[in-house]
Amino acid sequence: MKPVLIVHGGAGAGPTGDSDRPLEGCRAALLAGGEVLRAGGSAIDAVVAAVEALEDDPCFNAGRGAVLNADGEVELDASLMDGERLRAGAVGAVRRLRHPIQLAKKILEEDRHILLVGEGAQRFAQETGVPQCPETELVTDARRVQWTAQQSAESGGTVGAVALDQYGRIAAGTSTGGMLGKRPGRVGDSALIGCGTYADSRAGGASATGHGEAIIRVALAKFAIDQMAVGRSPVDTARLAMSLLSERGRGQGGVILLDCSGRIGVAHNTPSMAHGWLASDGELVTAWASA
Amino acid sequence: MKPVLIVHGGAGAGPTGDSDRPLEGCRAALLAGGEVLRAGGSAIDAVVAAVEALEDDPCFNAGRGAVLNADGEVELDASLMDGERLRAGAVGAVRRLRHPIQLAKKILEEDRHILLVGEGAQRFAQETGVPQCPETELVTDARRVQWTAQQSAESGGTVGAVALDQYGRIAAGTSTGGMLGKRPGRVGDSALIGCGTYADSRAGGASATGHGEAIIRVALAKFAIDQMAVGRSPVDTARLAMSLLSERGRGQGGVILLDCSGRIGVAHNTPSMAHGWLASDGELVTAWASA
Repeated sequence: MKPVLIVHGGAGAGPTGDSDRPLEGCRAALLAGGEVLRAGGSAIDAVVAAVEALEDDPCFNAGRGAVLNADGEVELDASLMDGERLRAGAVGAVRRLRHPIQLAKKILEEDRHILLVGEGAQRFAQETGVPQCPETELVTDARRVQWTAQQSAESGGTVGAVALDQYGRIAAGTSTGGMLGKRPGRVGDSALIGCGTYADSRAGGASATGHGEAIIRVALAKFAIDQMAVGRSPVDTARLAMSLLSERGRGQGGVILLDCSGRIGVAHNTPSMAHGWLASDGELVTAWASA
Repeated sequence: MKPVLIVHGGAGAGPTGDSDRPLEGCRAALLAGGEVLRAGGSAIDAVVAAVEALEDDPCFNAGRGAVLNADGEVELDASLMDGERLRAGAVGAVRRLRHPIQLAKKILEEDRHILLVGEGAQRFAQETGVPQCPETELVTDARRVQWTAQQSAESGGTVGAVALDQYGRIAAGTSTGGMLGKRPGRVGDSALIGCGTYADSRAGGASATGHGEAIIRVALAKFAIDQMAVGRSPVDTARLAMSLLSERGRGQGGVILLDCSGRIGVAHNTPSMAHGWLASDGELVTAWASA
């Protein structure tokens, strides 16, 4: 199998002024995850490397640069799924982590629980040595200003990645700060297997972004995988998923897909979704909107 | 439409000695929910009434009588879905609530978020007037003994209900204390839309019980609804869901189903699952195992 990697940096209104920073962030993530795949690494490790790069980039709403909740604090959601044995790990409403996707990976590896939230998730981070950081390290000036004005200053959004490795294994992951001004304790689709993230090596992988509650209503990622499992192409599946999200979910967002033969699909019902992919021939593409 | 109500009290090893208490609990829940339906009430209100009755009964692992986590404390999960507009509310790892399903209903009604966890969920309970109680009111002597011995003393388990009202609306709900000795902050399938609970008035409703992580891996409730949406009978769907749970989920559990024409389906891959239904002709049935 020739490895493939696809990433997104959130569905939204599109580039603000001069800034192509979300596309540059996607490119950096593809290079980080691509290096893992080229060295013979696993789909899981490639997804984690790509998502970590996106969490590090303050232009995205994940890790450093996440939006603030109603209390003016950062609470993070993330999830990771291994399509090989359907193992998964996820965290919801967790604080003071620069890389929530790392904690999701620890939960996946322990293979006992899938979703840990709040203080309990924090404790598991301590026990397993996932680095914690002061809140101030996560909060950027731009997000503080945005919170004070309580208006969405569009830049990058939720991040995600889906990878197929040389052994035919598929993994998917998603990470976010959620919704600006959300209630403390609110967990969105990015922490939920079947909603924001799903992977099954027999069918494909998916990572979603957008209005979390709308995505949960229709279990968007699982819907997409089930469509690819019965032979629908990733391109058609992505479009169909957006119809479902609009009509039954009553919300906006986007999705990136990868099927078990390495084909990709991208769609959004927002004006744009920063995304990119590293194709099996080594070609690297980034774009603001799906074709 | 003639109203129908179906409830479960958890999949497990079966009756312990002399006790048919879980069947009596199911009967009481059917009477409580049935009264709402007979008076022309909504499917949502019937599900809440039935689940509240089950949460009140200390023989079940929900509300009073819930199992204890690794810290010897009670953390509760619950979810509720209205199949009419796919509205949903859910709580995870929430403490000191006698009726977590009531808090799920408040979240559904606010229609802003879907899942609130931990302290944040607790705060929303205070703001919306959902009664809180001391921890001691939730912990029974039997659960304390079970925790000390760290062995599963089988009695009732997770509870759930699915209703169809006279207007053709379907709702589903689930409530649980989760897994004995779970890590603090662990959230299981019962809090997750698409996993433990799903309802769509165009297709049907589902409530699951069993090994939460296995149910999450296959998004069991959403799988069942999608099968009924394409015309598979609830009986066949329930059986197929159990094959999926065993083979791909790698775990045990059970599910109750109701489709949009009022037909029911029940299956479990455990020795038993206390359950019962109130049929459209008024007949009330309870049983330890599916037919």
